[in-house]
Amino acid sequence: MNAPVNRQVLLVQRPAGIPQACDFKIIESPVPMPASGQVRIRNHFLSVEPAMRGWVSAVANYSEPVPLGGVMRSFTAGVIDASDHPDYPVGLAVTGLFGWQDYAVADVSAIEQVIEARDLPISSALGVLGINGVTAHYGLLEIGQPQAGQTVVVSTAAGAVGSCVGQIAKIKGCRTVAIAGGARKMRQCLEEFGYDAAVDYKSSDFVSEIAAACSGGVDIYFDNTSGVISDEVMKHLNVGARIAICGTASVSNWNPAPQGPRVERHLLVKRARMQGFVIFDHADYYPQARHELGSWIRAGQLRYAEDILDGIEAAPDAIAGLYRGENMGKRLIRLVTV
Amino acid sequence: MNAPVNRQVLLVQRPAGIPQACDFKIIESPVPMPASGQVRIRNHFLSVEPAMRGWVSAVANYSEPVPLGGVMRSFTAGVIDASDHPDYPVGLAVTGLFGWQDYAVADVSAIEQVIEARDLPISSALGVLGINGVTAHYGLLEIGQPQAGQTVVVSTAAGAVGSCVGQIAKIKGCRTVAIAGGARKMRQCLEEFGYDAAVDYKSSDFVSEIAAACSGGVDIYFDNTSGVISDEVMKHLNVGARIAICGTASVSNWNPAPQGPRVERHLLVKRARMQGFVIFDHADYYPQARHELGSWIRAGQLRYAEDILDGIEAAPDAIAGLYRGENMGKRLIRLVTV
Repeated sequence: MNAPVNRQVLLVQRPAGIPQACDFKIIESPVPMPASGQVRIRNHFLSVEPAMRGWVSAVANYSEPVPLGGVMRSFTAGVIDASDHPDYPVGLAVTGLFGWQDYAVADVSAIEQVIEARDLPISSALGVLGINGVTAHYGLLEIGQPQAGQTVVVSTAAGAVGSCVGQIAKIKGCRTVAIAGGARKMRQCLEEFGYDAAVDYKSSDFVSEIAAACSGGVDIYFDNTSGVISDEVMKHLNVGARIAICGTASVSNWNPAPQGPRVERHLLVKRARMQGFVIFDHADYYPQARHELGSWIRAGQLRYAEDILDGIEAAPDAIAGLYRGENMGKRLIRLVTV
Repeated sequence: MNAPVNRQVLLVQRPAGIPQACDFKIIESPVPMPASGQVRIRNHFLSVEPAMRGWVSAVANYSEPVPLGGVMRSFTAGVIDASDHPDYPVGLAVTGLFGWQDYAVADVSAIEQVIEARDLPISSALGVLGINGVTAHYGLLEIGQPQAGQTVVVSTAAGAVGSCVGQIAKIKGCRTVAIAGGARKMRQCLEEFGYDAAVDYKSSDFVSEIAAACSGGVDIYFDNTSGVISDEVMKHLNVGARIAICGTASVSNWNPAPQGPRVERHLLVKRARMQGFVIFDHADYYPQARHELGSWIRAGQLRYAEDILDGIEAAPDAIAGLYRGENMGKRLIRLVTV
C-alpha cells in the first residue's frame, strides 16, 4: 500500500461565536505508517457536534481549546487499515478523537471504543451509541431521575441527543413534550420519536403553545438551548423539578453572558434543581449506557435519525449548519461508502 | 385569671414587595379560654423572618398567603398559661405558628415543638434551634455537601441563617467567606462567627474584594440574596460547585423576575448545581438537626446573635428593617421579660 494522501480540516481562526466555514481550511499531507504500538485508522465517518463551538473557543471551558493550525477535534468512526499492535488488527472498527481528516495514526490508548455491535451501522457508534446517546442516557436518568407519569420537556428535541432523551423518557413511562423548529421537525418528533406533544419555537404562538403542552407542569426539562425557549419552560415547573443543562444552542455568544430573567426565586419556590453536566466526566458510565441503548435499538424501542453529508469538503460549514437548524438528525460527514 | 387583652398584628393590605409597617395594624381583642383538648399560649417571643415577604404575597409561593385581615403568621416561643389537655400542662414552653399576638388558643396538634433544652434561652428555639438553624444545617449539609478544605461563601452571612451556615462549615473543616453589609457586620462575621474572610457588598471595591476572597474558587455558595451579589460569586465557581438557594433578599420584587446574566453556560461548563429548598418540606429532619445544633452550642462551637425589639408595637416595621439590613442577628419581638 502506498502512503495515501490525507485531507485534513484545520482550525485557522478562532470564532467569536458559532464556528463558520471561514474558520477552517482543508490541506493535504502524507500519512505516515504506524510506529510500534500504533495503528492507522481510515476514518469512515466524522462527527459534527454542537459542543464543537466550545471546543474551538478560547474562553474557559471544560476542555483545552483546539489549537490554531491544528486538525479540528472530532470523534470519528473508522477501520484500522495498518497496524503495529497485535491486539488491534487491520479491519477492526473503532472510534476515537481522531479528528476531521481521512486518516489518523495513533497509539492504541487513543481508541475510545472497539465497535462490537457490527450488526448496526458503524455510524451509530458516533451518535445514538456514541456520546450523543450516552449524554441523553446520563442526563435524563442520572440528573433528571424520571418517574413514570412525569412530564419531560426536551429542547432541540429532534437532535441527536434530544431525540434519544425523548424516547428514553417514553420507555420510562413519562409524558414527553418536544421543542424544535419548523413543521418537518414537529412531524419527525411526533411520528419518528414518539413525543406526546411537539411545540415549534418558531411559532408566533410559542408562549401559549408551550403553556398548553405543559398544562400539567414540567417535572424534567432537558435543556439543550437556554435563552427565551427555556424562559418559557421555566414558567411551568412543578415542585421538585429537575433541569439538566446539556447545551445552550440558542445563545450564540456567552462573553459576556446575555441577560435573562433571574431564576433563583423560581428555583426556590419550586424547590427545583438546575444542574449542568459534561459527559466526558463520566467515561465509566459509557459501557452500561451503550449496552442498554443497543438493546433498545434492537428491540425497536429506540430510533435514530442521521443527517449525512458526503465528503470532507462539507465539514467546515457543518457546525454552522447545526446552529441554523438545518439537520434532521445526527450530523455526520461520510468519507467512505462501504 | 381574668381574660387578658390580646394585642394582635393584622395584615391589612398586601404589599407589592417588602412588607412595610403600613401593611399591618394592631388591634385588641379578648382571649378565649382553651376548649377541650386545647391550650392557651402566652407568647414570649415573636419571630421576624425574611421569608415573611413571601408569606404575605399573593403570588404563587410555597405556602398559602396570610389572609387579609388575619393575624400575621409567625413562629413564636411561649409558655402554656391555660390548658385543657393533660399532656400539655401550664408552664410548658412551646413553639408553633402562633402568630404576631400576645396569646394564642390552639389545638395541641399545632404545637411545633415542646422546648426541651431549658438550659438555653427559649428565644433560641426560634433562631439557632428553630427554622433558621435547621435551614442552615439542611441547606449546607444536605444540598451543599461540604468537604473539608472546600470554600463556602455565604450571603447575608451575619444573619440568623447565614451565621449558622458559616460556623457549621467551619466545624466541617471548610474555609468560609462572608458577604454582608457594613463595617459592624464585617467585624461580627470575623470575630463572632469565625469566618476566614468577610466582604462588604456595599464597598465600591466589592467586585475585586470578592474575587480576592475567592481566589481559590467557590465550592459551595449558600445564597440568601440573589441579584448582583450572587452574580459576582458565580464568576468564581469551581468545577462541581453547589449553590443552595435559600433566599433572595436583595431582590425586592419578583413579579416579573428582574433580568440578570444567564447562568446556564456557567452551570454547564462548571458542572455546577443550583438548587432551591424550603425547609418546611423537611420537618422530619428537624429533630436530628436541633439535637446536633444544641450540642454544638453547649460545646462552644456555635454562637448566635439576637436582635431583640421590645413590644409588639415594633412588629409592623420589623420585616422592612430586616431588608434595610439593620439587624445584627436573629430578629425577635420580645413580649415578656422573664
